[in-house]
Amino acid sequence: MKHFRNIFLVLSVIVFISCNNTETKKDVSEVSVSNTFLERVEPLHWWVNMKNTSLQLLVKEENIGQSEPSISYPGVTIKKVNKAKSNNYLFLDLDIDATTKSGKFDITFIFDDQTTKTHTYELKQRQKTADEYVGFNSTDAIYLITPDRFTNADESNDINKNLKETTIDRTDGYKRHGGDLQGIINGIDYIADLGFTTVWPTPVLENNMYQGSYHGYAITDYYSVDPRFGNLSDYKNLADKLREKGMKLIMDQVANHCGLEHWWMKDLPFEDWVNHQKNYEDNIENWNYKTNINSNHRRTTNQDLYASESDRKGNNEGWFVATMPDLNQRNPFMANYIIQNSIWWIETLGLGGIRQDTYPYPDKDFMANWAGAIMEEYPNFSIVGEEWSYNPLLVGYWQTGADNKDGYESNLKSTMDFPMQKAIIEGINEEESWDKGLVKLYEGLANDFYYATPKDIMIFLDNHDKSRLFTEVKEDVVNAKMALSYMLMLPRIPQIYYGTEILMDDTANPGDHGLIRTDFPGGFKGDKINAFTGLGLTDDQKSMQDFVSKVLNYRKNSDAIQDGKTIHFAPFMNTYFLFRIKNDETVVHIINKNEKPIIIDLKRYKEVGLDGKKLKNIVTGEEFLWNDAIQLSEKGSVILTTKF
Amino acid sequence: MKHFRNIFLVLSVIVFISCNNTETKKDVSEVSVSNTFLERVEPLHWWVNMKNTSLQLLVKEENIGQSEPSISYPGVTIKKVNKAKSNNYLFLDLDIDATTKSGKFDITFIFDDQTTKTHTYELKQRQKTADEYVGFNSTDAIYLITPDRFTNADESNDINKNLKETTIDRTDGYKRHGGDLQGIINGIDYIADLGFTTVWPTPVLENNMYQGSYHGYAITDYYSVDPRFGNLSDYKNLADKLREKGMKLIMDQVANHCGLEHWWMKDLPFEDWVNHQKNYEDNIENWNYKTNINSNHRRTTNQDLYASESDRKGNNEGWFVATMPDLNQRNPFMANYIIQNSIWWIETLGLGGIRQDTYPYPDKDFMANWAGAIMEEYPNFSIVGEEWSYNPLLVGYWQTGADNKDGYESNLKSTMDFPMQKAIIEGINEEESWDKGLVKLYEGLANDFYYATPKDIMIFLDNHDKSRLFTEVKEDVVNAKMALSYMLMLPRIPQIYYGTEILMDDTANPGDHGLIRTDFPGGFKGDKINAFTGLGLTDDQKSMQDFVSKVLNYRKNSDAIQDGKTIHFAPFMNTYFLFRIKNDETVVHIINKNEKPIIIDLKRYKEVGLDGKKLKNIVTGEEFLWNDAIQLSEKGSVILTTKF
Repeated sequence: MKHFRNIFLVLSVIVFISCNNTETKKDVSEVSVSNTFLERVEPLHWWVNMKNTSLQLLVKEENIGQSEPSISYPGVTIKKVNKAKSNNYLFLDLDIDATTKSGKFDITFIFDDQTTKTHTYELKQRQKTADEYVGFNSTDAIYLITPDRFTNADESNDINKNLKETTIDRTDGYKRHGGDLQGIINGIDYIADLGFTTVWPTPVLENNMYQGSYHGYAITDYYSVDPRFGNLSDYKNLADKLREKGMKLIMDQVANHCGLEHWWMKDLPFEDWVNHQKNYEDNIENWNYKTNINSNHRRTTNQDLYASESDRKGNNEGWFVATMPDLNQRNPFMANYIIQNSIWWIETLGLGGIRQDTYPYPDKDFMANWAGAIMEEYPNFSIVGEEWSYNPLLVGYWQTGADNKDGYESNLKSTMDFPMQKAIIEGINEEESWDKGLVKLYEGLANDFYYATPKDIMIFLDNHDKSRLFTEVKEDVVNAKMALSYMLMLPRIPQIYYGTEILMDDTANPGDHGLIRTDFPGGFKGDKINAFTGLGLTDDQKSMQDFVSKVLNYRKNSDAIQDGKTIHFAPFMNTYFLFRIKNDETVVHIINKNEKPIIIDLKRYKEVGLDGKKLKNIVTGEEFLWNDAIQLSEKGSVILTTKF
Repeated sequence: MKHFRNIFLVLSVIVFISCNNTETKKDVSEVSVSNTFLERVEPLHWWVNMKNTSLQLLVKEENIGQSEPSISYPGVTIKKVNKAKSNNYLFLDLDIDATTKSGKFDITFIFDDQTTKTHTYELKQRQKTADEYVGFNSTDAIYLITPDRFTNADESNDINKNLKETTIDRTDGYKRHGGDLQGIINGIDYIADLGFTTVWPTPVLENNMYQGSYHGYAITDYYSVDPRFGNLSDYKNLADKLREKGMKLIMDQVANHCGLEHWWMKDLPFEDWVNHQKNYEDNIENWNYKTNINSNHRRTTNQDLYASESDRKGNNEGWFVATMPDLNQRNPFMANYIIQNSIWWIETLGLGGIRQDTYPYPDKDFMANWAGAIMEEYPNFSIVGEEWSYNPLLVGYWQTGADNKDGYESNLKSTMDFPMQKAIIEGINEEESWDKGLVKLYEGLANDFYYATPKDIMIFLDNHDKSRLFTEVKEDVVNAKMALSYMLMLPRIPQIYYGTEILMDDTANPGDHGLIRTDFPGGFKGDKINAFTGLGLTDDQKSMQDFVSKVLNYRKNSDAIQDGKTIHFAPFMNTYFLFRIKNDETVVHIINKNEKPIIIDLKRYKEVGLDGKKLKNIVTGEEFLWNDAIQLSEKGSVILTTKF
């Protein structure tokens, strides 16, 4: 059975016409294009004055493969018409030259039987110059949100009967809970007050899956917002509201895989559109989520000189899980599709960055091309790729500028600091000894000598996939603050997961994804605890919230932390001193693990040049004259600054 | 009180005249130079036709600082006479131009009071060309020996009443046991039969210390063999005997520190000859081995972009331990002294390599100059430096050709693979799981992509400082063989510690240095067990000895292992396959951790191209036709080869 969809477009009005109940309603409020008859034309629209003048349109419609397309619009040329294996697709290579004006034009398709159909396509004016798309960097602090779990601002979108998963159940960590984009918008003031400058929601595109659709990583339509999160207007609204406050929006994208229920899975354009496509097609009638075509997850095959070809393919071509078909980025049409989709969202939302999922899984040459194409179009943009490895060698390999012996240049500005995350958690938890405890932080940070640009690396202590900080530090508030304040002092881009500021935990079942992504208190109707207002928070929670706010708000204006020189001293007497210095501003971060008061001789730190200077504790406000010695009266971290 | 020493030289006859009982007797059997009156002239002699025509002589004699030296010998010029802070030293900068012939000449010193003294110095003919000094490499297998503990061939040298430590006590792991150079010579056939090609004895130079002198790392005279090990003739004899068998001798050198009882400690030439010299001199009268000037051992300061200057100095300038003064290689006379000493030993013994102790402790720029000077003189030589770190980033940093961001070029051909050592031991011991067990070996080896030249790295499973392999694998013979055979298959230079071939252990007190360095059975009079003859060895010991011999003797002629391409496959069903391939020779190494028989489908390994080929097990001799599947009948390692 064949599904298709005609969409008539009325500007600013949402109109759905769907020929089939099981199809997603498509939000087209902002798509100013008349899809007069075609099932799909993607990208939905494009822009004039792009640096790259090429555009490849995916056109889907029954028997479109037998048609002859033409365009008559000044500056726009069809360079090539590419047929697919499926007769229901065409890929049109357009050139949009520098003289092209924004506007709409018809693409005319003349079929074998001489019937003619037209599709109106739009080329828009760009809203800002390419240079103005400034990505997140070390001046920022990122708040990571699982949208389904943050705030349910619009209960009317909680259940959508046209989608495959229709239940909402807040008692089940793996079901939808109702959070949405408007919920994030409502939280912007809270997030901004905490001192964050950037928001990274996990993916909000359509995940029309039978189950587990809440997390967003099984995308079934790369051009649609999942209706349970809202619509494109909401997404744009979020971006706009953030921008108004001088904040940035990061989009979480997935180039490696789609969801098994992606619309194209029922009619794949090529024989190699997804990897292991034949296995999939042979079994499609009774596809049972049990396959032997999953990735081997041996990510070191990307670097390993000795990796077998079979293992390398096993990692890159296997499916991430059985419900997530592995996109074949070596198919050039797929490659273009992904690159253009990323650019479409950057341009549409005015993004402040992309977070790319599962970085070491797609074809790595493609990933370099993908990132390269984006950075070529938006030179000040930022992309962070997820390489979940505790091995700095692997993490460093993926960062642009790495001197890789195999010549690999990723074009990827930012990587994720899993190695430091682990070092901090271990080091804070461990008893001090010669090679345990704070020395893990000290030696972990020493590895920076290997990275191309340490300060472009994203640091975090927990995220949507990892046990919560508070659980990791065994629910010790002092340790949680130590770990967090240290992280916020590093030459890095810090990321904090929503709720970590109020000590959210997953202690009941550490590492359980559903539990890690617990509902944010105050975000759901009837919540007796409200983190936004402080209602019902414990003293510890309030204290942590206040601590995060003070440190982040200081950091926001601190050249020393954002861009200063770093000096640290090997741990000594269960203390660890780290200094960030820029011009007249010196910030001192001290971790003290001694339970009893201790006096530390400051002679050792003389080279920092603080003798005789007055400093202020950015959390308590106390002042301190840096001279012979400092008394540390209790376990914890102390942050002092010369700038106040 | 002032000590000095006149040494009259008679060729090939050992003559000692010592004005002081506590002084070491100096072995001068091979030193064909008349020290007619001077306490010391070092290097003891030199050679003509060196690539570097400069030579800096250290001259020590009471009030020599007030004298005027001169030389009249064709080709030899005194370029500069350098006075020291102590009046009892001069440093003479000589140039020995390319025309200089070998021979003896007088250096004449005219003192203030016009008295004249002469010293006869010799420039020898070189025995072979610089190119012929070929260092150890991946074609070799190294047998590491603690000389005091291997074989006591000459009991007459066990106790030397002129030295400070005069006891010998085989019941005490930290006392001398009597092993000597002749003992190693006696063992050469045994070592060669096992399949080793290279011998690395830990240092045998004079350690005239009050205690712990057996290990050799507290050198008190850089030009003297410790009489308890023998004399220079014995050392040369060892080198010659090895060379006759086509084997190489590695000398273990120590540039970082000397022993506290080094002769120069009582009259230091400069104020900065050793680091923390002033602290030492201020306390010399009651030097009590308890000081606060020890190294902080924070070796990451060599790489760390953020290390404080004080920590960096703490690592590089602190004393390794309180009985080992830290040499200041930033003093140019010390720098020359160390470089020339190394070259003197290479040339004197015809060395096949140097192992340099505690590599990240001396001044790193000096170390680069030191290694550079040696490699410039002997382009095919090899030096291995000890960076005891489990972090590949640090180990890789020190290898020549590393793309270090700070531009550091070490000139050091070989480093030590502590990271792989740890990975192998952990991986063999651990139960198999997603991220434990054999995957540690697989992912550890994957880190090779970072190293400049992996096959020049020395791999080992134990050494004189680390717990014995048999103890590390919990006295499981099968595991010990698995670990060892895997190590011997790697693109590396393998090193095995004496006794590991007969399962020597330190289980009674793991990590105890005295116990690690247990006496080799059969090396000492009255031994009831004799590893050389097999007398009294258990079946397990014999089996391990036989296993090592078979694998090493195969390796000795295997281009595939020495220099082949490497392919390995991610662990699967508790097995791990590694292939080494060169031309027609393919060697397959399989680790099987399954206790029960298992059949492995060989389809996965198709890319290696072995289908239909006949292979032979190099240990059991069994033949195997590589086709659909292989049955692994028991836990252990299997080594198959196509070459037989």
